[in-house]
Parts: sequence; C-alpha cells; structure tokens
Amino acid sequence: MAKQKKQPRPKAITPKGFRDYFGAEVDERKRMLDQIAAVYHRYGFDALESSAVETVEALGKFLPDVDRPNEGVFAWQDDDDSWLALRYDLTAPLARVYAQHRNDLPTPYRRYAMGPVWRNEKPGPGRFRQFYQCDADTVGTASMAADAEICALLADTLETVGIPRGDYVVRVNNRKVLNGVLEVMGVDEGPTRDAVLRTIDKFDKVGEAGVRELLGNGRLDASGAYIDGVGLSEEQAQPVLAFLTSKGKTADKTLANLRAAVGDSAIGAEGVTELNEIATLLAAQGYGPDRIVIDPSVVRGLGYYTGPVFEAELTFEILDEKGRPRQFGSVAGGGRYDDLVRRFTGQAVPATGVSIGVDRLLAALRAKGRMDGETVGPVVVTVMDKSRLAEYQEMVGELRQAGIRAEVYLGNPKNFGNQLKYADKRGSPVAIIAGSDEFEAGKVQIKDLVLGAKIAENATLEEWKERPSQFECDRADMVAKVREIVEGYDG
Amino acid sequence: MAKQKKQPRPKAITPKGFRDYFGAEVDERKRMLDQIAAVYHRYGFDALESSAVETVEALGKFLPDVDRPNEGVFAWQDDDDSWLALRYDLTAPLARVYAQHRNDLPTPYRRYAMGPVWRNEKPGPGRFRQFYQCDADTVGTASMAADAEICALLADTLETVGIPRGDYVVRVNNRKVLNGVLEVMGVDEGPTRDAVLRTIDKFDKVGEAGVRELLGNGRLDASGAYIDGVGLSEEQAQPVLAFLTSKGKTADKTLANLRAAVGDSAIGAEGVTELNEIATLLAAQGYGPDRIVIDPSVVRGLGYYTGPVFEAELTFEILDEKGRPRQFGSVAGGGRYDDLVRRFTGQAVPATGVSIGVDRLLAALRAKGRMDGETVGPVVVTVMDKSRLAEYQEMVGELRQAGIRAEVYLGNPKNFGNQLKYADKRGSPVAIIAGSDEFEAGKVQIKDLVLGAKIAENATLEEWKERPSQFECDRADMVAKVREIVEGYDG
Repeated sequence: MAKQKKQPRPKAITPKGFRDYFGAEVDERKRMLDQIAAVYHRYGFDALESSAVETVEALGKFLPDVDRPNEGVFAWQDDDDSWLALRYDLTAPLARVYAQHRNDLPTPYRRYAMGPVWRNEKPGPGRFRQFYQCDADTVGTASMAADAEICALLADTLETVGIPRGDYVVRVNNRKVLNGVLEVMGVDEGPTRDAVLRTIDKFDKVGEAGVRELLGNGRLDASGAYIDGVGLSEEQAQPVLAFLTSKGKTADKTLANLRAAVGDSAIGAEGVTELNEIATLLAAQGYGPDRIVIDPSVVRGLGYYTGPVFEAELTFEILDEKGRPRQFGSVAGGGRYDDLVRRFTGQAVPATGVSIGVDRLLAALRAKGRMDGETVGPVVVTVMDKSRLAEYQEMVGELRQAGIRAEVYLGNPKNFGNQLKYADKRGSPVAIIAGSDEFEAGKVQIKDLVLGAKIAENATLEEWKERPSQFECDRADMVAKVREIVEGYDG
Repeated sequence: MAKQKKQPRPKAITPKGFRDYFGAEVDERKRMLDQIAAVYHRYGFDALESSAVETVEALGKFLPDVDRPNEGVFAWQDDDDSWLALRYDLTAPLARVYAQHRNDLPTPYRRYAMGPVWRNEKPGPGRFRQFYQCDADTVGTASMAADAEICALLADTLETVGIPRGDYVVRVNNRKVLNGVLEVMGVDEGPTRDAVLRTIDKFDKVGEAGVRELLGNGRLDASGAYIDGVGLSEEQAQPVLAFLTSKGKTADKTLANLRAAVGDSAIGAEGVTELNEIATLLAAQGYGPDRIVIDPSVVRGLGYYTGPVFEAELTFEILDEKGRPRQFGSVAGGGRYDDLVRRFTGQAVPATGVSIGVDRLLAALRAKGRMDGETVGPVVVTVMDKSRLAEYQEMVGELRQAGIRAEVYLGNPKNFGNQLKYADKRGSPVAIIAGSDEFEAGKVQIKDLVLGAKIAENATLEEWKERPSQFECDRADMVAKVREIVEGYDG
C-alpha cells in the first residue's frame, strides 16, 4: 500500500449517469425479471445471453433517436485497433447472434434476453447511462402469427407481474399503412416526409386540430411560441388526418377506415391486411380490445421497423412532479424488423419482437403499490458477552439451518444500544439477547422488533399491550419461537 | 436501409475473447446463482448491484496479477475527458460503494454481488474477457468472526449447489503468518521477497524438495529446463520450509507448528492467533477439518490481502485434456483486505470476503453430472392446415394457461417433416397434430417424441411396445393428456 499513499485520494463516486442499486431494489427487479422470464419461457422462448461488448461495426447505426453513426455508444479501440462498444440495446446483438449462429439455431428462433444496456447520452433526472431491458423476439418467420404472439405475450407478461387487466393496453399499428398514406399523399423520402412523421408523433399531445395546423401553416403552442407548419395544403394533409383518426369502435371499423385512408396504395393495403390477420388471430385466442387494440396513432421512433409496431401503455393515472394527474404511459414497445439480419448475411431474415423498459415497469408497479419495497432483514443475534462469540454463532447456525435469515452482530459489541440501532437499520424482525444470566439458566431473550416499533408508535392499543414485545424462552425453543414471529410478518 | 447497402457488410462475430450463452447454459447458471444468492441472503448479506462502469481512478491498480496501472482493463475517455473503465472484479467497486455511501449503510455492511466482470487480457482456450463472479463481503469489522463466517458460508454454498461434503475443502491461511516468517528470515520488501513468494506459490506443484531447490540454487524442471533459484542458503530457507510443511493432523498441531515457524515475530504471532480464533469459532459451529482446514500452503496472488486468506478447492478428480486424472482444483478464493476502502477515505475500514468463480463452479457441477444440460423444450403444435392458424393458437393458449411450455410452429408449414425436425431440435417432449379429419371429429393426435426416440433407438423392449408413441384423443382432453406425458419426463 506504500505506493498508494503518494497519490492523491481517488474520489468515491459513480461516473456521471451511473448509479448503484441496493438490497430491496435489486431483489424487486430480480423478482419481476424472474416472473417475466417464466412467461417468456412458457411461450417457448429460449434464453440468450450475448456479451456486453460488441464490435462497433456489428452494432451498426441503429441507435434509436440518433442519426449519427457511433454516437451515443461507449466505444474504445481494442489492442488490434478494431473498435469495440458496449451494446446499446438487445436487438442489434440478436441480429449479430442469429447471423453468426444461424446454422445451429432452430428456425424460427424464439429467444428472450434480459440485462443491462448502455447509452452514452447526457444523463438527466431519472435518466441513466446504464439500464435494463428485457426482450422477446422471433427470428426467421414472416408469419403475422409471430407478431400476434408477441402482443399476447406482452399482455400476459404485464398481468403476470401485477398490472391488472384494464390498467394496460397493447396498441398495434403497421408501418406499411403509414407508408401507404404517405405514398397516397405523394410525399417521398426527404425533409417533408420527416416533418410529417414528426408531426404524426405529436398527435397524442396536440390532437387532430393541432396536427391539422402543424401540417399546414403552423400553430401557437401553449407557451405562446409559434411553431412553424409543414406547409401542406388542407387537401394534401387530409390522408394523414384520416389515418390518425381512423380508430373505430371495433377492430373491423378501424380496419375499414384504414383501408379507405391508404386508397390504392399496394403497400398500404398490405399493411391493413397484416393488421387484419393479427386482429383475427388475437380475437380467436380471446385477446379482445380491452387488452390489445389496433391504434393508428402508434408510430414508434425507431427507423428499423418494417411492418407491425406495438406499444404497451399503462392507462392508470399517477401524479406528475407538479401533482397533476397524468397517464403512466408506455412501458414496452417493439415491432417487425425484417432487415436487421440482412445487414450481415445479405439475405432477408424476417424478425419481430418486443422490449420491456424494466425500470419504467418497476416504477409502475411501485406506483400501484405492487412492490413492498422491503426485504425482510435478518434476525440479529446480539453480543452481550464477547467471550461467548462461538455460542452466538451456534445460535445463528441453528436459525440459518431452519431457513431463517440470521446473523451475529459483528460490530463493536461495547454499546448495546448500537446493536439494536443496527438491527433497526437492517429491518430485522427479531433480536436475540443472551448474557451470562441467560446462558446459566439455559434461556434466551427474544425481542420482537416489529411489534416493539408498533407499540412505540401507538402504545394504547389493547392487542399490543397483551402481547409482550420481549420475552424469555428456553434456549432449546429459540428456533421455534423465532419462526413463529418471522412467519407472522412474512404472511 | 438505403444507406446501409453502400457499406461493406459487417462481420457477424463476437469480439475476440467474448462469447454468447444459449438456452440451457443461461438457465443452469441462473439456477446456480439463485441457489447461491439464497444462501448469502440467509446469512444476512444484502444484494448490491453497482454499475459495470467505474472511473479508472476508483478502480485503482489492484488488478490481480497485473503490476502496471490501468493495464488489463477496458477503458475509454468520457466526454469530459475523465477516464472510465469496465469493472475487472466486484471488490474494487464495493470499496468505492462503501466509501461513497458509508453514512447510509449499516456497519458492519454484509453485501453480496453477482454479475459479469471484464478483463482486457489475451484470451485463450476457456479464457474469456467477460465472465461472472459472485461475491460475499463484510465491510466494517475487524472481528475474526466475520472471516470464520465467510468460510462457513463458502462451505454451505458449495454443498447447496451440489458439491457433496468430502468433495471440497475450504483452506485457510493468514498473510500475517507468512509476513512473520519473512521477517524472521530478514527478507524485506524487494526482488528477493517477490522471488520467495513466487516460489512458495509453486509448493503445490513441486513439493517440499522442489521448493528447497528453488529457494537455493535452482532445479531442473520436468521439461529438462533449468530454473534459476533464489539463492538463499539452506539455513535461510529453513523457516519457509518449516512454514510450508507445518500442516499437522489437527488444527492445534498446525497452529503449534506455525507458532514455531514465526519465532519471535510479532506480526507472525498475530497471524497465528487470528487463525486460532477462526478455527475455534468454526469448530464450535461444527465445521470440522473435513470441510474447513488451516493450510499454510494457501498463498493467493492478490496483493491487497492483509490477514486471513481462503481458498475453496474441489478435491474430486477429473480427466485433463490428455486423459490423465487430476484434482479439479480451486473454485473460490478470498481473504481480508483492510486497506481497500482507506484509499478513498483515509480511514482504515476493515473488510473480508470471498469470490466464487462462477464458470469454474459450473464446470465442476457439469463434471459431477449435477447439471442435466437440458432445458425441457416446448410442446410444438404443428400446422397441417394453414387456414386454421387461429385454432392452433387456441390450443397453444390452453396449454400455456395450464403452465405447459408450448408454441405453434411458425416456420413454413409446407413440409411436415421439417416441423418434426424443428420439434426435435427444440428438445420438444410432445408434438400435437391436427388436420381437417381431426378438426371435424373433435380430436387431436398426440405424439410422444421422447418415447418415439426411445423406440427408434431400441424397438424390442416390451414396455415401449405396449405404449403407443402416438395416439388420438378428444380435443377437450388434450391438455390433460399432454400434462401426463410432460410431467412423466419432468420427474
């Protein structure tokens, strides 16, 4: 260590945009991911864990919302001068894995993956540069049954983790329909098309009238600023408005509206047919519009989608930072991306899938009170007599062997109050106390810390007065007595 | 996608030294880590997940076996010119986390962590640049009870994942004893001391006579090459040899031998006393020398250990690449490192812990036949009639709702043989077959693929002839019949 002393002390900080997760946060995420994995597995999806590090060229330039290549990723040069980077999502690595191993993998290949991804972006409040994703994808089939299955999987997954039916909706759209609308309008790829797409994305916020103004000459927004319009004529803008407002009372009605909106565009008609297939398959399995609905306003930013796109939205309200109620919003999204594998192989490999925003979904479950946010602390065997450490360890050993989370207090035992403060900090349900009197009599003291805290809070209630928060019992009965208390609080 | 086409195709490869893990490999590791986490949790350790990325200065220069700072890690410069790196182990991040959050954490802080770590090293066969570690550490107590607990934890963990008692041993030594021996020899820090330490590390391989030669003038190794010695006299080398051969039949005998080996060195005596405390505590809890043993030949390379060091060794034999039997060897190691947190805070914060080599332990369990290496494949509902996809989906929905892993074949259904080949590749236990005949009669065909394969292998056995590998049943009985078969193979 001598060399270390000469250097200035390093700062004990996470790099900006990174954070640590402690105890219950880790446990809750793990529990949710385990539940999700069980659903994915039951649907026939196999686990895949690719490495966190990929070659920059394999990742490609598909980073969501970033047009510049290799921006937004953490990248560095390897010893052999090739560029490596941390994965920014789980889809790009899947395309690489499938292209690399396609001769050994079943076709179609259903895989799920969960793990951290990294974005080299400006961090902000609640916006981190490392976060979890949890994806399910089917590679190697163009069948709309695969897309319908992803939607059903998403609905089942949300219900399994604790979002009740009625509190979510999976919205489905199709890129081809939108392309058909743009074709009918005569809007080719270019700045005008991009402006139209950005405007469509605002439909949720500004509504039909707002989109009409933004497609035309522009509008005054809520803050009083004037937003320039795309400059289309009323007539030119009409197909977009027809498309956006085509959601009917039933799927059939919506599909009829969409069919009208795409006019004689072949690609548009193909998109409507695909949506119809998905709707038919889902209806046959009993997934009605209370769970999965065709919704033309779903756009999804990602450039690589080529057909159906999905979005899972939580419809219950939470309060925003200013205390105003608002819908919780999107927690998962995906779609069909038939061209990602082709980058590697030159051959078209159809694929479709979904990605769950793990932290968003966890936040939703916490907002709904579905996460207790607590991990039961260990039973703490306190140390009254330092020379009897082996005997305290024996007690702890017995408790652990009975499956009860337990530990000996290993800090400085001098101040007994500190030991109880420690137990409190750990959320311990029970403290065991034994000094020389107890050892001689073959007894231990059992302190019910949860009950003790309740009595301290509200000492008048009869039921608590009747139960002692600390009692003595035979050493031989310790495990049984502790188990009674702990099981009472677990249930 | 137009822009992509202009570029040469990217190669679909993992960067060198990285690999992908598929299906059963992921499931097996997860199952083992879940078992380990349950033991750690029962011992009172709390989960911690720190970020994969740390500042280079926080990681420090403690990379095992690498003397040069910042070598061996994947590092890059952040936008603000600070250097970031992927963590190379879970201990350096723990020291940073504890220093950063010490006012909010309980003292002592027992934490466990599991996850990938990254080493920028030359990859080799079975040597990857990303691999899993799984650590448990106690920070903030100098008590030998914490070290004893880590040893007991390690023994319990190995038995829980499936290494039976007798097939492993946790070996314990103490750096201070070794330092005491070197003090007695008058060997200060410097090249001679380093050479002596390297020689001690070879004791397992070359034995007492080999170490004697290497401490003296050198020796001819098995390949016929002459290895230079350290150049000590017979008398100078004597304490090292006494130390290395001090393992007696009982812990008491070993401790007496060590006490003799450290002579009047104060630090050496302290080390022996610490070992004695650990042995006493473990004996009181029933951890005898069949599980945990004091063994002076444990050195462990890592520079940062300051007291007790531990190593878990698997003692059963496996065959090496050349078919020769050899002991499986080390799967976990650790020790006390009282100075790591001080780097940040300037205050001494004692800490001790252990790290399990996840891939090594998995390999051991596979070698012992404790991992079946298979995940049960899904029931495959085949597609005889493309127009009835919704009805096949309904069947799958019923199976999934009954908790049975199932999927519709989503590839091209034209060639029915391909569907059965797919089911085979997936390890499916059952295929469901239904064409228009079956639909009209309200029936399905159930094909028992496991039984079918057995019959194909050995068609003469009576018990299999009696059971048909394919049978028809009422559509309404499908789930029950499939469950019977699947549960038969699960058990």
